[in-house]
Amino acid sequence: MNRTFGRSLTAALRSSPRRHLSLFGYTQAKALVYSKYGKPQDVLRLHQHPISPAYGDEITVKFLAAPINPADINQIEGVYPAKPPFTTALSTPEPSAVAGNEGVVEVLSTGSNVKDFQPGDRAIMRHTSFGTWRTHASASSANLLKIPSDPSITAIQAATISVNPCTAYRMLKDFTPMQKGDWFIQNGANSGVGRSAIQLGRLWGLKSVNVIRNRPGVEELKEELKMLGADMVVTEEELANRSFWGELDEKTGGKRVMLGLNCVGGKPTTDLVRRLGYGGNLVTYGAMSYQPITIPTGLLIFKDIRFRGFWVSTWSDKHPDEKQAMIDELFGYIKTGEFKDVPIQETMWNSDTKVEELKAAIERSSKGFGGKKQIFVFEG
Amino acid sequence: MNRTFGRSLTAALRSSPRRHLSLFGYTQAKALVYSKYGKPQDVLRLHQHPISPAYGDEITVKFLAAPINPADINQIEGVYPAKPPFTTALSTPEPSAVAGNEGVVEVLSTGSNVKDFQPGDRAIMRHTSFGTWRTHASASSANLLKIPSDPSITAIQAATISVNPCTAYRMLKDFTPMQKGDWFIQNGANSGVGRSAIQLGRLWGLKSVNVIRNRPGVEELKEELKMLGADMVVTEEELANRSFWGELDEKTGGKRVMLGLNCVGGKPTTDLVRRLGYGGNLVTYGAMSYQPITIPTGLLIFKDIRFRGFWVSTWSDKHPDEKQAMIDELFGYIKTGEFKDVPIQETMWNSDTKVEELKAAIERSSKGFGGKKQIFVFEG
Repeated sequence: MNRTFGRSLTAALRSSPRRHLSLFGYTQAKALVYSKYGKPQDVLRLHQHPISPAYGDEITVKFLAAPINPADINQIEGVYPAKPPFTTALSTPEPSAVAGNEGVVEVLSTGSNVKDFQPGDRAIMRHTSFGTWRTHASASSANLLKIPSDPSITAIQAATISVNPCTAYRMLKDFTPMQKGDWFIQNGANSGVGRSAIQLGRLWGLKSVNVIRNRPGVEELKEELKMLGADMVVTEEELANRSFWGELDEKTGGKRVMLGLNCVGGKPTTDLVRRLGYGGNLVTYGAMSYQPITIPTGLLIFKDIRFRGFWVSTWSDKHPDEKQAMIDELFGYIKTGEFKDVPIQETMWNSDTKVEELKAAIERSSKGFGGKKQIFVFEG
Repeated sequence: MNRTFGRSLTAALRSSPRRHLSLFGYTQAKALVYSKYGKPQDVLRLHQHPISPAYGDEITVKFLAAPINPADINQIEGVYPAKPPFTTALSTPEPSAVAGNEGVVEVLSTGSNVKDFQPGDRAIMRHTSFGTWRTHASASSANLLKIPSDPSITAIQAATISVNPCTAYRMLKDFTPMQKGDWFIQNGANSGVGRSAIQLGRLWGLKSVNVIRNRPGVEELKEELKMLGADMVVTEEELANRSFWGELDEKTGGKRVMLGLNCVGGKPTTDLVRRLGYGGNLVTYGAMSYQPITIPTGLLIFKDIRFRGFWVSTWSDKHPDEKQAMIDELFGYIKTGEFKDVPIQETMWNSDTKVEELKAAIERSSKGFGGKKQIFVFEG
């Protein structure tokens, strides 16, 4: 009822001016923008601008949900390799970028040249740096990946599928041949990627050793991850203990662990690498400890451990068709209830929402890993 | 004239008893052995034992030359993954191992079942842990790799071909596709492997950036490596300097350096890795600094740098036929003078040589890298 695409002037005037000033078919959009890199609390502004009905190749979309990922923060700080475009396209006083990289949209209107989308379609972002922390956007079909308009897939599930589940999916598939019954080991196991890897492993018949940091309530967290399908869950201290060799051998039946997933760095990662078998692979996708990885040379030369990194943005840009197939497969698991969401905390965003409320969500997301994922959910 | 294989008693008695006590066809052999791991100066003993004429599947060989490699020292210290067999086969009072892994032999006699070797043939070791610091040995054809008995190939060249030139060869061939005009970068460039890589690179049309430690006479060393075919030679400090980006770009014409060879570790290796292009490979084969490798996570995730190790022993065990072809190719370069020896210092070993003289050579080899390679050359 709050959509204003291509309607008549009369119809537009009939809609509530308070919610979205709409005249001659224009929608008033809001976006979290920044014109220079810095701390999100310092540099983000809530910018209001009109969005016209789609024309030609354009697609006008409204956002349904957009999460706050660690990479979004790094991008605003200017320490992320994917730099957003700074433009005055949204009539900002200075060239600005819209924050946020992941999210789900609904199509409001399409230009006459657009054949592959129609109003009501849902889509996720095909590439990084789209700018997803905003109520509306003008897009082209090259930037959108259509997803099923299936009521059993929530906006939050759709908004969070591109980064974490896709990262886990590719790391389990692309770095070493894994067959049913094979083992992998990962740290940061309670992160979004970690929980995705546990569940995909379970669905594909893979076994997982999951490393978490010690914390209050660690036993409950262990149980929670085991409910998702984790075969072993240990703290960093337990992993480093000599006695863990025996436990691991007993669980795996002596089978070598050939794949490790790392988002931590520092000593806990070296400890993890030591548990890999001859010729094993460590795939790094994050550095929550902000520490580099330290590799004893013998592990490279004599144990033939291989170290690679993975960045889902690059992968997505290179493999658009495979991305579509992967997303379809993941939605399949979600629909049947085999793949559970990460714990989340929603922040509602409507035309009345103050910038302070949005920044508070960003602040919460920066504090402590293993907390709930913060997500903007758009109303109206 | 000093060979005593299968000759008559009379003939054996005619040979000089001082050089090698030979009675009933037995040769008196000497070997540097150890019965427990430790510092070479502490644990090595010179053990004398008889070697009988070859019988059945046996091949009796005399050594012509055997180098002292860093790995040999590590093996004696017990910190090398390839452990030698400890046996009483040489009639040692305790189970003992013979030190040394690389060398060249001449066949003295063959048992009646041996078809592929005959007296006078030359051979190198097919596997690690043969025990090459000895005057004579009893071997089987499975342990020997025949090489051409070509007078233009010296014993020293043959004795030092298996480890360093083969390591350089495989690292340039097996880790990333390299075409004529492509660049690689290596540290420890004045080491045996480093000099081999420079020369193979030159022969194959590859360009090299060579990193060495600063030292007295560094300019002379730079010139020496350039004479071998090095395209750039820089010190570790020059490599780390920001201005090196410009120099490198100018030399390479902006071409990305996709392969790095590392035998150092620590900060100089991190500096080297930063010079690799997107998707580049670092291959580690040594750790002269005894420091681990420190990898900033961003180089893995966002620059897709790949880290592997290489150990020629494992490779040789897995690829016997390719090893033969590679050795033949390398000898081809040596014969035409296109592939130069590393600087060496010989220690003569005959029946009069005292254990102290041999240990002095080992001591020299442990001191400082970039010095001359120590090599035992057998007389008599």
